[in-house]
Amino acid sequence: MHDQVAFLAFVTLAAVLEQAYFSMQVIWARRKYKVSPPSTSGHPCFERVFRAQLNCSEYFSLFISVLWVSGLFFHQGTSSVFGLLYLYTRYAYFHGYAESAQGRLKPMYASATILWILIGLSTAGLLDYLLSAYFRVEILKSLGRWFL
Amino acid sequence: MHDQVAFLAFVTLAAVLEQAYFSMQVIWARRKYKVSPPSTSGHPCFERVFRAQLNCSEYFSLFISVLWVSGLFFHQGTSSVFGLLYLYTRYAYFHGYAESAQGRLKPMYASATILWILIGLSTAGLLDYLLSAYFRVEILKSLGRWFL
Amino acid sequence: MHDQVAFLAFVTLAAVLEQAYFSMQVIWARRKYKVSPPSTSGHPCFERVFRAQLNCSEYFSLFISVLWVSGLFFHQGTSSVFGLLYLYTRYAYFHGYAESAQGRLKPMYASATILWILIGLSTAGLLDYLLSAYFRVEILKSLGRWFL
Repeated sequence: MHDQVAFLAFVTLAAVLEQAYFSMQVIWARRKYKVSPPSTSGHPCFERVFRAQLNCSEYFSLFISVLWVSGLFFHQGTSSVFGLLYLYTRYAYFHGYAESAQGRLKPMYASATILWILIGLSTAGLLDYLLSAYFRVEILKSLGRWFL
Repeated sequence: MHDQVAFLAFVTLAAVLEQAYFSMQVIWARRKYKVSPPSTSGHPCFERVFRAQLNCSEYFSLFISVLWVSGLFFHQGTSSVFGLLYLYTRYAYFHGYAESAQGRLKPMYASATILWILIGLSTAGLLDYLLSAYFRVEILKSLGRWFL
Repeated sequence: MHDQVAFLAFVTLAAVLEQAYFSMQVIWARRKYKVSPPSTSGHPCFERVFRAQLNCSEYFSLFISVLWVSGLFFHQGTSSVFGLLYLYTRYAYFHGYAESAQGRLKPMYASATILWILIGLSTAGLLDYLLSAYFRVEILKSLGRWFL
Protein backbone atom coordinates (compact mmCIF):
# COMPACT_ATOMS: atom_id res chain seq x y z
CA MET A 1 0.00 0.00 0.00
CA HIS A 2 2.90 2.38 0.85
CA ASP A 3 4.01 2.84 -2.74
CA GLN A 4 0.50 4.01 -3.72
CA VAL A 5 0.52 6.85 -1.20
CA ALA A 6 4.14 7.83 -0.42
CA PHE A 7 4.11 10.96 -2.59
CA LEU A 8 0.64 11.96 -1.35
CA ALA A 9 1.92 11.58 2.21
CA PHE A 10 4.93 13.72 1.31
CA VAL A 11 2.75 16.54 -0.08
CA THR A 12 0.48 16.24 2.98
CA LEU A 13 3.49 16.67 5.27
CA ALA A 14 4.60 19.73 3.26
CA ALA A 15 1.08 21.16 3.57
CA VAL A 16 1.15 20.70 7.35
CA LEU A 17 4.54 22.45 7.55
CA GLU A 18 3.15 25.34 5.48
CA GLN A 19 0.18 25.70 7.85
CA ALA A 20 2.55 25.63 10.82
CA TYR A 21 4.50 28.47 9.16
CA PHE A 22 1.27 30.49 8.63
CA SER A 23 0.28 29.95 12.28
CA MET A 24 3.65 31.27 13.42
CA GLN A 25 3.15 34.36 11.24
CA VAL A 26 -0.14 35.03 13.09
CA ILE A 27 1.63 34.73 16.45
CA TRP A 28 4.29 37.21 15.29
CA ALA A 29 1.62 39.58 13.94
CA ARG A 30 -0.19 39.38 17.31
CA ARG A 31 3.02 40.50 19.03
CA LYS A 32 3.91 43.19 16.49
CA TYR A 33 0.46 44.81 16.46
CA LYS A 34 -0.24 44.06 20.14
CA VAL A 35 -3.46 42.06 19.65
CA SER A 36 -3.83 39.74 22.66
CA PRO A 37 -5.96 36.59 22.44
CA PRO A 38 -8.90 36.03 22.43
CA SER A 39 -9.29 39.25 20.42
CA THR A 40 -9.01 38.86 16.63
CA SER A 41 -9.51 42.45 15.57
CA GLY A 42 -7.18 45.42 15.66
CA HIS A 43 -4.68 46.85 13.19
CA PRO A 44 -5.74 46.05 9.57
CA CYS A 45 -2.31 44.46 8.97
CA PHE A 46 -2.96 41.98 11.77
CA GLU A 47 -6.49 41.32 10.54
CA ARG A 48 -5.23 40.53 7.04
CA VAL A 49 -2.62 38.07 8.32
CA PHE A 50 -5.23 36.51 10.60
CA ARG A 51 -7.80 36.16 7.80
CA ALA A 52 -5.16 34.81 5.39
CA GLN A 53 -4.23 32.07 7.86
CA LEU A 54 -7.88 31.25 8.60
CA ASN A 55 -8.67 31.00 4.89
CA CYS A 56 -5.71 28.68 4.19
CA SER A 57 -6.70 26.63 7.22
CA GLU A 58 -10.32 26.28 5.98
CA TYR A 59 -9.12 25.08 2.60
CA PHE A 60 -6.53 22.73 4.09
CA SER A 61 -8.88 19.77 4.59
CA LEU A 62 -10.59 20.30 1.22
CA PHE A 63 -7.17 20.27 -0.42
CA ILE A 64 -5.97 17.14 1.41
CA SER A 65 -9.24 15.36 0.52
CA VAL A 66 -9.03 15.95 -3.23
CA LEU A 67 -5.27 15.39 -3.23
CA TRP A 68 -5.77 11.86 -1.88
CA VAL A 69 -8.89 11.01 -3.90
CA SER A 70 -7.27 12.13 -7.16
CA GLY A 71 -3.97 10.51 -6.15
CA LEU A 72 -5.62 7.16 -5.37
CA PHE A 73 -8.06 7.06 -8.29
CA PHE A 74 -6.43 9.11 -11.05
CA HIS A 75 -2.64 9.19 -10.76
CA GLN A 76 -0.40 9.70 -7.75
CA GLY A 77 2.40 11.60 -9.52
CA THR A 78 0.09 14.04 -11.34
CA SER A 79 -1.85 14.81 -8.16
CA SER A 80 1.33 15.33 -6.16
CA VAL A 81 2.69 17.82 -8.71
CA PHE A 82 -0.55 19.81 -8.65
CA GLY A 83 -0.48 19.50 -4.87
CA LEU A 84 2.94 21.15 -4.68
CA LEU A 85 1.78 23.87 -7.09
CA TYR A 86 -1.22 24.46 -4.82
CA LEU A 87 1.05 24.90 -1.80
CA TYR A 88 3.11 27.42 -3.77
CA THR A 89 0.02 29.48 -4.72
CA ARG A 90 -1.12 29.39 -1.06
CA TYR A 91 2.27 30.75 -0.02
CA ALA A 92 1.89 33.58 -2.57
CA TYR A 93 -1.70 34.16 -1.38
CA PHE A 94 -0.65 34.45 2.25
CA HIS A 95 2.07 36.99 1.58
CA GLY A 96 -0.03 38.86 -0.97
CA TYR A 97 -2.89 39.16 1.54
CA ALA A 98 -0.51 40.22 4.32
CA GLU A 99 0.51 43.19 2.15
CA SER A 100 -2.93 44.24 0.89
CA ALA A 101 -6.45 42.85 0.38
CA GLN A 102 -5.88 43.43 -3.35
CA GLY A 103 -2.65 41.40 -3.29
CA ARG A 104 -4.45 38.22 -2.34
CA LEU A 105 -6.57 38.08 -5.53
CA LYS A 106 -4.17 36.74 -8.18
CA PRO A 107 -2.77 33.82 -6.14
CA MET A 108 -6.29 33.16 -4.79
CA TYR A 109 -7.56 32.57 -8.33
CA ALA A 110 -4.48 30.44 -9.09
CA SER A 111 -5.02 28.27 -6.00
CA ALA A 112 -8.74 27.92 -6.78
CA THR A 113 -7.88 26.84 -10.33
CA ILE A 114 -5.56 24.11 -9.06
CA LEU A 115 -8.18 22.96 -6.58
CA TRP A 116 -10.68 22.66 -9.45
CA ILE A 117 -8.12 20.69 -11.47
CA LEU A 118 -7.70 18.27 -8.55
CA ILE A 119 -11.50 18.04 -8.27
CA GLY A 120 -11.63 17.29 -12.00
CA LEU A 121 -8.93 14.60 -11.74
CA SER A 122 -10.75 13.06 -8.76
CA THR A 123 -14.03 12.98 -10.68
CA ALA A 124 -12.38 11.49 -13.77
CA GLY A 125 -10.52 8.87 -11.74
CA LEU A 126 -13.55 7.88 -9.66
CA LEU A 127 -15.96 7.75 -12.61
CA ASP A 128 -13.47 5.65 -14.54
CA TYR A 129 -13.04 3.29 -11.60
CA LEU A 130 -16.78 2.94 -10.91
CA LEU A 131 -17.65 2.49 -14.60
CA SER A 132 -14.97 -0.16 -15.12
CA ALA A 133 -15.79 -1.93 -11.83
CA TYR A 134 -19.56 -2.01 -12.30
CA PHE A 135 -20.15 -1.62 -16.05
CA ARG A 136 -16.85 -2.86 -17.49
CA VAL A 137 -16.48 0.37 -19.44
CA GLU A 138 -12.83 1.46 -19.45
CA ILE A 139 -12.68 5.09 -20.54
CA LEU A 140 -9.22 6.20 -19.38
CA LYS A 141 -7.57 3.03 -20.69
CA SER A 142 -9.19 3.49 -24.11
CA LEU A 143 -8.22 7.17 -24.17
CA GLY A 144 -4.69 6.15 -23.24
CA ARG A 145 -4.59 3.71 -26.17
CA TRP A 146 -5.55 6.54 -28.57
CA PHE A 147 -3.07 9.06 -27.30
CA LEU A 148 -0.07 6.98 -26.25
CA MET B 1 -7.67 -1.44 -1.85
CA HIS B 2 -9.70 0.70 -4.28
CA ASP B 3 -12.89 -1.32 -3.90
CA GLN B 4 -12.81 -0.80 -0.12
CA VAL B 5 -12.84 3.00 -0.44
CA ALA B 6 -14.39 3.98 -3.81
CA PHE B 7 -17.75 5.00 -2.34
CA LEU B 8 -16.10 6.80 0.57
CA ALA B 9 -13.96 8.70 -1.94
CA PHE B 10 -17.10 9.53 -3.92
CA VAL B 11 -18.89 10.97 -0.85
CA THR B 12 -15.68 12.85 0.05
CA LEU B 13 -15.62 14.42 -3.41
CA ALA B 14 -19.30 15.39 -3.07
CA ALA B 15 -18.51 16.96 0.32
CA VAL B 16 -15.68 19.01 -1.21
CA LEU B 17 -17.99 20.22 -3.98
CA GLU B 18 -20.59 21.22 -1.39
CA GLN B 19 -17.97 23.23 0.55
CA ALA B 20 -16.88 24.90 -2.70
CA TYR B 21 -20.52 25.86 -3.28
CA PHE B 22 -20.79 27.32 0.25
CA SER B 23 -17.57 29.31 -0.26
CA MET B 24 -18.98 30.80 -3.45
CA GLN B 25 -22.14 31.82 -1.58
CA VAL B 26 -19.95 33.76 0.87
CA ILE B 27 -18.18 35.53 -2.01
CA TRP B 28 -21.57 36.47 -3.51
CA ALA B 29 -22.85 37.66 -0.10
CA ARG B 30 -19.69 39.78 0.29
CA ARG B 31 -20.50 41.49 -3.03
CA LYS B 32 -24.23 41.86 -2.36
CA TYR B 33 -23.82 43.37 1.12
CA LYS B 34 -20.58 45.20 0.28
CA VAL B 35 -18.39 43.60 2.98
CA SER B 36 -14.78 43.77 1.77
CA PRO B 37 -12.15 41.39 3.14
CA PRO B 38 -10.60 41.15 5.70
CA SER B 39 -13.78 42.37 7.44
CA THR B 40 -16.23 39.63 8.47
CA SER B 41 -18.93 41.77 10.04
CA GLY B 42 -21.64 43.93 8.50
CA HIS B 43 -25.21 43.26 7.41
CA PRO B 44 -26.75 40.43 9.52
CA CYS B 45 -27.60 38.55 6.30
CA PHE B 46 -23.91 38.48 5.35
CA GLU B 47 -22.90 37.46 8.88
CA ARG B 48 -25.32 34.53 8.85
CA VAL B 49 -24.02 33.26 5.49
CA PHE B 50 -20.45 33.71 6.72
CA ARG B 51 -21.10 31.85 9.99
CA ALA B 52 -22.99 29.08 8.18
CA GLN B 53 -20.03 28.48 5.87
CA LEU B 54 -17.54 28.60 8.76
CA ASN B 55 -19.59 26.11 10.77
CA CYS B 56 -19.87 23.66 7.84
CA SER B 57 -16.16 24.09 7.23
CA GLU B 58 -15.31 23.30 10.89
CA TYR B 59 -17.38 20.13 10.77
CA PHE B 60 -16.01 19.07 7.38
CA SER B 61 -12.91 17.30 8.73
CA LEU B 62 -14.83 15.70 11.60
CA PHE B 63 -17.33 14.37 9.08
CA ILE B 64 -14.67 13.04 6.69
CA SER B 65 -12.85 11.36 9.60
CA VAL B 66 -15.86 9.40 10.89
CA LEU B 67 -17.04 8.68 7.34
CA TRP B 68 -13.78 6.89 6.59
CA VAL B 69 -13.37 5.18 9.96
CA SER B 70 -16.94 3.83 9.90
CA GLY B 71 -16.60 2.98 6.20
CA LEU B 72 -13.37 1.04 6.73
CA PHE B 73 -14.29 -0.73 9.97
CA PHE B 74 -18.08 -1.03 9.90
CA HIS B 75 -19.48 -1.08 6.36
CA GLN B 76 -18.67 1.06 3.35
CA GLY B 77 -22.16 1.20 1.85
CA THR B 78 -23.94 2.07 5.10
CA SER B 79 -21.44 4.84 5.90
CA SER B 80 -21.71 6.27 2.40
CA VAL B 81 -25.52 6.46 2.58
CA PHE B 82 -25.35 8.28 5.93
CA GLY B 83 -22.60 10.45 4.42
CA LEU B 84 -24.87 11.57 1.61
CA LEU B 85 -27.70 12.22 4.08
CA TYR B 86 -25.29 14.34 6.12
CA LEU B 87 -24.42 16.42 3.06
CA TYR B 88 -28.13 16.94 2.41
CA THR B 89 -28.76 18.15 5.99
CA ARG B 90 -25.76 20.50 5.69
CA TYR B 91 -27.26 21.96 2.53
CA ALA B 92 -30.56 22.53 4.37
CA TYR B 93 -28.64 24.01 7.32
CA PHE B 94 -26.76 26.46 5.12
CA HIS B 95 -29.87 27.79 3.39
CA GLY B 96 -31.89 27.74 6.63
CA TYR B 97 -29.21 29.80 8.40
CA ALA B 98 -28.92 32.21 5.43
CA GLU B 99 -32.62 33.01 5.91
CA SER B 100 -32.71 33.29 9.71
CA ALA B 101 -30.78 32.18 12.80
CA GLN B 102 -33.91 30.19 13.75
CA GLY B 103 -33.95 28.42 10.37
CA ARG B 104 -30.63 26.70 11.04
CA LEU B 105 -31.86 24.75 14.06
CA LYS B 106 -33.85 21.84 12.57
CA PRO B 107 -31.24 20.79 9.95
CA MET B 108 -28.48 21.41 12.53
CA TYR B 109 -30.03 18.81 14.84
CA ALA B 110 -30.49 16.45 11.87
CA SER B 111 -26.86 16.79 10.79
CA ALA B 112 -25.66 16.32 14.39
CA THR B 113 -27.78 13.16 14.67
CA ILE B 114 -26.20 11.70 11.52
CA LEU B 115 -22.74 12.59 12.78
CA TRP B 116 -23.49 10.72 16.02
CA ILE B 117 -24.73 7.74 14.01
CA LEU B 118 -21.44 7.70 12.08
CA ILE B 119 -19.55 7.97 15.38
CA GLY B 120 -21.60 5.04 16.68
CA LEU B 121 -20.88 2.94 13.58
CA SER B 122 -17.17 3.78 13.84
CA THR B 123 -17.09 2.76 17.49
CA ALA B 124 -18.97 -0.49 16.78
CA GLY B 125 -16.74 -1.34 13.82
CA LEU B 126 -13.49 -0.55 15.63
CA LEU B 127 -14.45 -2.35 18.84
CA ASP B 128 -15.51 -5.39 16.82
CA TYR B 129 -12.22 -5.35 14.90
CA LEU B 130 -10.02 -4.91 17.97
CA LEU B 131 -11.92 -7.55 19.99
CA SER B 132 -11.75 -10.09 17.18
CA ALA B 133 -8.10 -9.31 16.37
CA TYR B 134 -6.83 -9.38 19.96
CA PHE B 135 -9.38 -11.44 21.90
CA ARG B 136 -10.95 -13.55 19.13
CA VAL B 137 -14.41 -12.33 20.17
CA GLU B 138 -16.56 -11.79 17.09
CA ILE B 139 -19.59 -9.72 18.09
CA LEU B 140 -20.88 -8.38 14.79
CA LYS B 141 -20.50 -11.75 13.06
CA SER B 142 -22.46 -13.47 15.83
CA LEU B 143 -25.14 -10.79 15.76
CA GLY B 144 -25.30 -11.21 11.98
CA ARG B 145 -25.83 -14.95 12.41
CA TRP B 146 -28.80 -14.28 14.69
CA PHE B 147 -30.47 -11.69 12.50
CA LEU B 148 -29.73 -12.82 8.96
CA MET C 1 -4.90 -3.15 5.49
CA HIS C 2 -7.03 -2.91 8.67
CA ASP C 3 -4.25 -3.99 11.02
CA GLN C 4 -2.01 -1.16 9.71
CA VAL C 5 -4.53 1.54 10.64
CA ALA C 6 -6.79 0.25 13.46
CA PHE C 7 -5.04 2.22 16.22
CA LEU C 8 -4.82 5.35 14.04
CA ALA C 9 -8.56 5.03 13.40
CA PHE C 10 -9.15 4.64 17.14
CA VAL C 11 -7.19 7.84 17.97
CA THR C 12 -9.03 9.62 15.12
CA LEU C 13 -12.36 8.61 16.63
CA ALA C 14 -11.22 9.85 20.05
CA ALA C 15 -10.18 13.16 18.46
CA VAL C 16 -13.62 13.55 16.85
CA LEU C 17 -15.30 12.88 20.20
CA GLU C 18 -13.08 15.50 21.83
CA GLN C 19 -14.05 18.08 19.20
CA ALA C 20 -17.73 17.21 19.71
CA TYR C 21 -17.22 17.86 23.41
CA PHE C 22 -15.58 21.25 22.71
CA SER C 23 -18.45 22.20 20.39
CA MET C 24 -20.96 21.43 23.11
CA GLN C 25 -19.01 23.65 25.52
CA VAL C 26 -19.41 26.53 23.05
CA ILE C 27 -23.17 25.92 22.85
CA TRP C 28 -23.38 25.95 26.66
CA ALA C 29 -21.25 29.12 26.84
CA ARG C 30 -23.56 30.77 24.28
CA ARG C 31 -26.53 30.03 26.56
CA LYS C 32 -24.79 31.01 29.80
CA TYR C 33 -23.48 34.35 28.49
CA LYS C 34 -26.48 34.98 26.23
CA VAL C 35 -24.57 35.31 22.93
CA SER C 36 -26.98 34.39 20.11
CA PRO C 37 -25.67 33.21 16.72
CA PRO C 38 -24.42 34.55 14.34
CA SER C 39 -22.66 36.84 16.86
CA THR C 40 -19.31 35.59 18.14
CA SER C 41 -18.42 38.43 20.47
CA GLY C 42 -19.69 39.30 23.93
CA HIS C 43 -18.55 38.38 27.44
CA PRO C 44 -14.77 37.65 27.51
CA CYS C 45 -15.49 34.23 29.03
CA PHE C 46 -17.60 33.29 26.02
CA GLU C 47 -14.98 34.68 23.62
CA ARG C 48 -12.25 32.58 25.22
CA VAL C 49 -14.29 29.38 24.98
CA PHE C 50 -15.19 30.24 21.38
CA ARG C 51 -11.57 30.94 20.41
CA ALA C 52 -10.35 27.81 22.20
CA GLN C 53 -12.76 25.64 20.22
CA LEU C 54 -11.88 27.39 16.94
CA ASN C 55 -8.17 26.91 17.56
CA CYS C 56 -8.56 23.20 18.38
CA SER C 57 -10.74 22.86 15.31
CA GLU C 58 -8.11 24.53 13.06
CA TYR C 59 -5.43 22.16 14.32
CA PHE C 60 -7.67 19.09 14.07
CA SER C 61 -6.94 18.35 10.41
CA LEU C 62 -3.22 19.10 10.78
CA PHE C 63 -3.12 16.65 13.69
CA ILE C 64 -5.04 13.91 11.85
CA SER C 65 -2.76 14.35 8.81
CA VAL C 66 0.53 13.88 10.67
CA LEU C 67 -0.97 11.17 12.88
CA TRP C 68 -1.73 9.06 9.79
CA VAL C 69 1.45 9.87 7.85
CA SER C 70 3.68 9.07 10.83
CA GLY C 71 1.53 6.03 11.68
CA LEU C 72 1.75 4.64 8.15
CA PHE C 73 5.40 5.42 7.46
CA PHE C 74 7.08 5.44 10.86
CA HIS C 75 5.27 3.25 13.41
CA GLN C 76 1.59 2.91 14.18
CA GLY C 77 1.91 2.31 17.92
CA THR C 78 4.34 5.19 18.57
CA SER C 79 2.16 7.62 16.60
CA SER C 80 -0.99 6.51 18.40
CA VAL C 81 0.58 7.06 21.82
CA PHE C 82 1.70 10.58 20.85
CA GLY C 83 -1.75 11.08 19.34
CA LEU C 84 -3.44 10.30 22.66
CA LEU C 85 -0.98 12.61 24.46
CA TYR C 86 -1.86 15.36 21.98
CA LEU C 87 -5.58 14.94 22.73
CA TYR C 88 -4.81 15.21 26.44
CA THR C 89 -2.83 18.48 25.98
CA ARG C 90 -5.69 19.86 23.85
CA TYR C 91 -8.14 19.07 26.65
CA ALA C 92 -5.88 20.93 29.10
CA TYR C 93 -5.54 23.81 26.60
CA PHE C 94 -9.30 24.15 26.20
CA HIS C 95 -10.00 24.29 29.92
CA GLY C 96 -6.96 26.48 30.59
CA TYR C 97 -8.09 28.97 27.93
CA ALA C 98 -11.69 28.90 29.24
CA GLU C 99 -10.33 30.10 32.60
CA SER C 100 -7.87 32.75 31.37
CA ALA C 101 -5.88 33.71 28.27
CA GLN C 102 -2.77 33.03 30.37
CA GLY C 103 -3.97 29.53 31.25
CA ARG C 104 -3.84 28.39 27.64
CA LEU C 105 -0.08 28.89 27.27
CA LYS C 106 1.47 25.86 29.00
CA PRO C 107 -0.75 23.19 27.36
CA MET C 108 -0.48 25.11 24.05
CA TYR C 109 3.30 24.69 24.09
CA ALA C 110 2.90 21.04 25.09
CA SER C 111 0.47 20.34 22.24
CA ALA C 112 2.73 22.17 19.77
CA THR C 113 5.69 20.08 20.93
CA ILE C 114 3.80 16.83 20.33
CA LEU C 115 2.69 18.05 16.92
CA TRP C 116 6.34 18.74 16.04
CA ILE C 117 7.29 15.26 17.27
CA LEU C 118 4.64 13.76 14.97
CA ILE C 119 5.96 15.93 12.11
CA GLY C 120 9.47 14.67 12.90
CA LEU C 121 8.34 11.02 12.93
CA SER C 122 6.48 11.56 9.63
CA THR C 123 9.56 13.09 8.04
CA ALA C 124 11.81 10.29 9.33
CA GLY C 125 9.41 7.58 8.18
CA LEU C 126 8.82 9.10 4.75
CA LEU C 127 12.49 9.85 4.08
CA ASP C 128 13.40 6.32 5.11
CA TYR C 129 10.73 4.86 2.84
CA LEU C 130 11.65 7.01 -0.17
CA LEU C 131 15.39 6.42 0.27
CA SER C 132 14.96 2.66 0.58
CA ALA C 133 12.44 2.48 -2.29
CA TYR C 134 14.39 4.62 -4.74
CA PHE C 135 17.99 4.49 -3.56
CA ARG C 136 18.05 1.23 -1.57
CA VAL C 137 19.41 3.06 1.46
CA GLU C 138 17.85 1.67 4.64
CA ILE C 139 18.51 4.11 7.46
CA LEU C 140 15.95 3.12 10.12
CA LYS C 141 16.67 -0.58 9.69
CA SER C 142 20.41 -0.01 10.12
CA LEU C 143 19.81 2.23 13.15
CA GLY C 144 17.55 -0.49 14.57
CA ARG C 145 20.33 -3.04 14.12
CA TRP C 146 22.70 -0.82 16.12
CA PHE C 147 20.35 -0.13 18.98
CA LEU C 148 18.28 -3.30 19.32
